[in-house]
Amino acid sequence: MAERALIFPAQEYRDRVARLQAGMDAQGLDALLLTTPADVFYTTGFLTRFWESPARPWFVVVPKAGDPVAVIPSIGAALMGRTWVRDIRTWDAPDPRDDGITLLADTLAQAVPAQGQIGLPMGPETHLRMPLAGFETLRARLAPRRFVDATACVQRVREVKSEAEIALIRDICTIAARAFDRVPDFAGAGQPLDAVFRDFQIALLAEGADWVSYVAGGAGQGGYGDVISPADPQPLRRGDILMLDTGAVKDGYFCDFDRNFAIGAAPDAARRAHAALWQATEDALAALRPGMRARDVHALLCAGLEKNGATPSGGRLGHGLGITLTEWPSFTPLDDTRLRAGMVLTLEPGCVTGEGRIMVHEENIVLRDGGAELLSPRAPAELPELAR
Amino acid sequence: MAERALIFPAQEYRDRVARLQAGMDAQGLDALLLTTPADVFYTTGFLTRFWESPARPWFVVVPKAGDPVAVIPSIGAALMGRTWVRDIRTWDAPDPRDDGITLLADTLAQAVPAQGQIGLPMGPETHLRMPLAGFETLRARLAPRRFVDATACVQRVREVKSEAEIALIRDICTIAARAFDRVPDFAGAGQPLDAVFRDFQIALLAEGADWVSYVAGGAGQGGYGDVISPADPQPLRRGDILMLDTGAVKDGYFCDFDRNFAIGAAPDAARRAHAALWQATEDALAALRPGMRARDVHALLCAGLEKNGATPSGGRLGHGLGITLTEWPSFTPLDDTRLRAGMVLTLEPGCVTGEGRIMVHEENIVLRDGGAELLSPRAPAELPELAR
Repeated sequence: MAERALIFPAQEYRDRVARLQAGMDAQGLDALLLTTPADVFYTTGFLTRFWESPARPWFVVVPKAGDPVAVIPSIGAALMGRTWVRDIRTWDAPDPRDDGITLLADTLAQAVPAQGQIGLPMGPETHLRMPLAGFETLRARLAPRRFVDATACVQRVREVKSEAEIALIRDICTIAARAFDRVPDFAGAGQPLDAVFRDFQIALLAEGADWVSYVAGGAGQGGYGDVISPADPQPLRRGDILMLDTGAVKDGYFCDFDRNFAIGAAPDAARRAHAALWQATEDALAALRPGMRARDVHALLCAGLEKNGATPSGGRLGHGLGITLTEWPSFTPLDDTRLRAGMVLTLEPGCVTGEGRIMVHEENIVLRDGGAELLSPRAPAELPELAR
Repeated sequence: MAERALIFPAQEYRDRVARLQAGMDAQGLDALLLTTPADVFYTTGFLTRFWESPARPWFVVVPKAGDPVAVIPSIGAALMGRTWVRDIRTWDAPDPRDDGITLLADTLAQAVPAQGQIGLPMGPETHLRMPLAGFETLRARLAPRRFVDATACVQRVREVKSEAEIALIRDICTIAARAFDRVPDFAGAGQPLDAVFRDFQIALLAEGADWVSYVAGGAGQGGYGDVISPADPQPLRRGDILMLDTGAVKDGYFCDFDRNFAIGAAPDAARRAHAALWQATEDALAALRPGMRARDVHALLCAGLEKNGATPSGGRLGHGLGITLTEWPSFTPLDDTRLRAGMVLTLEPGCVTGEGRIMVHEENIVLRDGGAELLSPRAPAELPELAR
């Protein structure tokens, strides 16, 4: 299983850690403490669906020089042993007396001088995946060492993808596109929405996804009410607009895009809304450049929708993408993050189609020096109709 | 979508909140702050796969009297509006200036007097699903109110399932059992393990799972190296033991059990190991009673394995089950949790079959006053052989 457990050659991980350490140096951090599935996978290549179990905390310590140290439950030792990480310290979890805290405190105390600083992601889009009481114990144990926010340190590194990462995201986008091509085989008037969701997941797996972490969508006359609901058993009706959105996974990397379908002949308003969403995306694809800010993309998409006669639906209109379904930045009026070449992003304009009804449209891109390059095969310009 | 968004009648949620409030009263808590998908779903019925996006925090406040208050991103307002919760306060997330903290602080300040206490799960098997910096701001804003650990308050309620919950867990166990019955259709010598994992997920969906949050397993000559790895593309060989383990989901409730298969004729040692695992489980099924402690079950299973000539593999030998893949308690020598009627549990003995090789066996049960009642259809006593 060696090849699969590593995903990339060891050099990819060494490069990542070197970039993290450059950021740590600039911020004066002596170590970085990482606890989430994405940050652990990013630095080590440790990929497992076992994170679904909330029973055990997992830790990676990145010292200011040298390779990362994994401080993990012994159930993960075999799998971590197949990654590039060589310093693997384990305890028999869950242990209600001390669930890795002493082992982690010792590891950090070795890496960080008494007056030193430990970076921890504490800002937007982060959380600490360990019991809060355990963290309070750790903090007291390590004093006078200080924990400081390392959100930017991690985000500035993770947000710029390597060519190897971009290739994996393109792979899963291509897999999802083939699954979307199959939608006419299983969706149509009379089909219950929950059966459509099930068949869509089956199509994603059959086309090569390792697993399907996210499927959502909606269906309703001329538009849908929201975009995050699970499916109900109500059958699709003529005049409905069906939207399917997926975050499928291959080798730990996500796609995140959606497609719309009219059930029967497309109502004029929905056809116009789809055309406006498509054209606003087209305009943004042409205009996107490194150096813009996230809020500029929001403004671009809103202007494009309005120019094409559509009313923006509010909320964020796209975001980063990679080893979680969504990553920073957010295309909102409030996000000042500077766009850089190598960022993988979604463009996700939405517009109002009626009282409590919207339509959304989403593509995945990588930003290059010269502009946007599509990773998701482009949606058709015209809203497709499912004849059945 | 009203019916599906609620899952249970409103009375189920009222009963849960009343039980939480009884525990809060006993501990002197003025409110409970909940942030995780499971705790939010448990108290409100809000079920979505959108938790896959780490971008936004979500909050539920349970006051010491009255109904819960949802403090959530506006993207969730429509779906939360279809639950039984009536007090829904929203903000336009993500907002890098203030991601719900002021709205949440105001909500908690209304519910909790200045000298009061806010309960928050901080102990084993919990985490705080919000940015740590946001929590520090919240804590400062609400002082002198104190945050105290409410892990036991939540766990003593959630661990005892209602008949409606037990019925849903039985449903998904039955679905998974039908998918396991299909394994001979797609697994056999020469089949790559990753294709088997994919086909198993397809079978789970085809049999009625809403989604598949967890599939893991392993394959190797006479046993497997670990039980949490994703699949590699290596073809199955005669003499391999294949294990598949799943946490599939229906209406938000998980199963969690596994099955073993020999590829070709079962080696004698694997057959004996399977028989020992099966018999140790059988003995524990007969012996389990409310009032035992979690550690007693660990001792029971170890004794059963040894009596049948097998060497226990270490680690925990079972756990709680419900709205996450694993819940407390843990069948380890260290867990003193008292077993109670209504708990849904897994029995998961494992034994060593060779150097770095193990086999595991898992069933799901509900504990009744009179003893264990199976929720997963019982595994065959003899290790099945896949002839292909």
